[in-house]
Amino acid sequence: MKLYRKAVLPLCFQANAVACGIKRSGKPDLALFYSEAPAKAACRFTANKIQAAPIKINKSYLKNNRQFQAIIANSGNANCFTGAQGLKDAAETSQAAALALGIEKEGVLVASTGIIGKKLPIQKIKKAIPDLAAGLSCGGIDKAKKAIRTTDTFDKEITAKFNIGASTVTICGLAKGAGMIAPKMACPERRPSTLLGPSPELVEGRSRGATMLAFIFTDAEITQKALDKALDMAVDNSFNCITVDGCMSTNDSVMVLANAAAMNAPIDANKNFASFSNALKAVCLELAKMIVKDAEGATKFIQISVAGARDVSQARIAALSIANSNLFKTAIYGQNPNFGRIVAAIGASAIEVKEKDIKIKVSPLKKSRISVDVSVGRGKARATVYTSDLTPEYIKINAEYN
Amino acid sequence: MKLYRKAVLPLCFQANAVACGIKRSGKPDLALFYSEAPAKAACRFTANKIQAAPIKINKSYLKNNRQFQAIIANSGNANCFTGAQGLKDAAETSQAAALALGIEKEGVLVASTGIIGKKLPIQKIKKAIPDLAAGLSCGGIDKAKKAIRTTDTFDKEITAKFNIGASTVTICGLAKGAGMIAPKMACPERRPSTLLGPSPELVEGRSRGATMLAFIFTDAEITQKALDKALDMAVDNSFNCITVDGCMSTNDSVMVLANAAAMNAPIDANKNFASFSNALKAVCLELAKMIVKDAEGATKFIQISVAGARDVSQARIAALSIANSNLFKTAIYGQNPNFGRIVAAIGASAIEVKEKDIKIKVSPLKKSRISVDVSVGRGKARATVYTSDLTPEYIKINAEYN
Repeated sequence: MKLYRKAVLPLCFQANAVACGIKRSGKPDLALFYSEAPAKAACRFTANKIQAAPIKINKSYLKNNRQFQAIIANSGNANCFTGAQGLKDAAETSQAAALALGIEKEGVLVASTGIIGKKLPIQKIKKAIPDLAAGLSCGGIDKAKKAIRTTDTFDKEITAKFNIGASTVTICGLAKGAGMIAPKMACPERRPSTLLGPSPELVEGRSRGATMLAFIFTDAEITQKALDKALDMAVDNSFNCITVDGCMSTNDSVMVLANAAAMNAPIDANKNFASFSNALKAVCLELAKMIVKDAEGATKFIQISVAGARDVSQARIAALSIANSNLFKTAIYGQNPNFGRIVAAIGASAIEVKEKDIKIKVSPLKKSRISVDVSVGRGKARATVYTSDLTPEYIKINAEYN
Repeated sequence: MKLYRKAVLPLCFQANAVACGIKRSGKPDLALFYSEAPAKAACRFTANKIQAAPIKINKSYLKNNRQFQAIIANSGNANCFTGAQGLKDAAETSQAAALALGIEKEGVLVASTGIIGKKLPIQKIKKAIPDLAAGLSCGGIDKAKKAIRTTDTFDKEITAKFNIGASTVTICGLAKGAGMIAPKMACPERRPSTLLGPSPELVEGRSRGATMLAFIFTDAEITQKALDKALDMAVDNSFNCITVDGCMSTNDSVMVLANAAAMNAPIDANKNFASFSNALKAVCLELAKMIVKDAEGATKFIQISVAGARDVSQARIAALSIANSNLFKTAIYGQNPNFGRIVAAIGASAIEVKEKDIKIKVSPLKKSRISVDVSVGRGKARATVYTSDLTPEYIKINAEYN
């Protein structure tokens, strides 16, 4: 398997983006990803109890259908806490894209990121969709990867290629996210949600929801079951292991489309699974790390490993407790070896631990990449999470943004 | 019941403080509180799994004994993550005070706040204790209230007075705390802990643990059961309802001594309980609010109420989820009405809630006191918590302090 730090669309995928006028800056804010043939889809969405309208629409589609041919995504507006109107707008966005593409009515997944609690400018979006669809191309991915950005300072993109027999399979991933990042993503089929009612009259203000979105495209031929299994494993060890600010978004989404264009020997849970699964894991982990590297205001990239835990869940709870400790994060920013704050964070996580068993190692604090290795001496399980420091710039960005 | 914003010791209590040399600044760092007669004690300690040595010593004393005559407290060093040596030092501190006071060997409770992971300078402390004890006086409370401070910018003190028949009962409280504040305090008898072993060789750095400590003195005559019950109710609605930075300390402690000197008609769970309980609640709530007002770097005092929850626990979980959201706290600092961040925080708390039922009201953001009133429309329970905004100054204080 080879990894390339650039998005290269797999066979029979195209993309495009336009500026439809959601962002006041006039920058691109509407992206379309298209597969020339129907593709299998696997999605994971935020575990936040308040979910954005596009997530609800996707979930309703996914109940009837697992074949999709496109994803439409806007930045600048999260279409969340927007009630019945929000649901209508998300559905109309998806259906306008389907119409322009000449595909099935429920064939387009939809995603949004940006301000929470503000009505989506649906007329602007609908007006832009015909040109957006008409301009699709393989190279359009370079426009699309920029159009999904909000406070991101760089494009998050990666491509994995590997062989199955004589066929080359490609997995290409894009992501956005820099703040409101503490994803906990679940499989929609296993945690069904119901469509919720309106509430726009209750919204007295506006908020940015910086969210993480990841769109992954592959030309692999793979069974639905294998695709779901591989995505579960990949998300659990990547996006679910990062935190910027401990704030779980209402819009976090990971979507994979697999269109079988590589004509490879089919992948299922037994055959060729490891090749695909490892490549998908690598794509997700690289994208997740890029989100942390681009964390709002961050000066440090921090890897925290907790070993010697009774089980992986306890290891991850302890690691995330450290990663989400404001005192730990400010200590790393200040390059101060305040390791007592790590001890306090481990104890606060309420995992099984005794003082005498705790071992802590921290790499030199002057560097921009920091690793924290903790052992809690209770068992053999280990987990690794990634986070950033907490800086005055994070506060400036989030105090002033509106 | 009358409240006075000054510490006035009840009958037959005395206090004193000295600078024994723990703090590099040379400011007072060792305080002693003394009751002329043995007093009933009630204590609540942090739920952090890593507990400072003085807490472990107090717990071991409390297993055998509920009568104490003094509290000795140092600032500048938390005596936490200090292994067997730390336990020895905490016990020696307590016993040196008992010796100087001529009282029972296990008659002195002990508390520490300051750096985590650094050996207590026990010789300096022991050397200072005879003078500390010799200088006890009623007025000494004014020295003692300063000696327990770390990053605190003002003294936290309050006195309640109320009558039972012809007797006036006094409850006087002191507190310290400004950062590492997210107390969750439990009754030591109900959650027993064992003495833990050593680990100083694992400590590769030093940390401040800013902690909250509260010392409460009353001349009430009250049964042990009533005292415990009143403290549970008071702590649960005060210290356990504040958060500055979501970081639970290893040293949080609340201690009450009741010496019966007021000679009031005895208070038990039925007789005169409400008078005492309400006064203790008021004392704890005022002290808790003072901690939030003095929160490191804060520019805003924020009260968050969640109503309409299924039960009080769910209401408090939702309120604390908002209070601990860095995005919410930076929005308040920036005076930006990003109320979507409140919605996201409620959803992230995983309490039962539907989008259409959420109502949010926020008072004008330009003022220094902000109230956030949320209703989640699921029941009749309500909870209120108190927090501060997150500012560049908080980061500066915690990045640079060592």
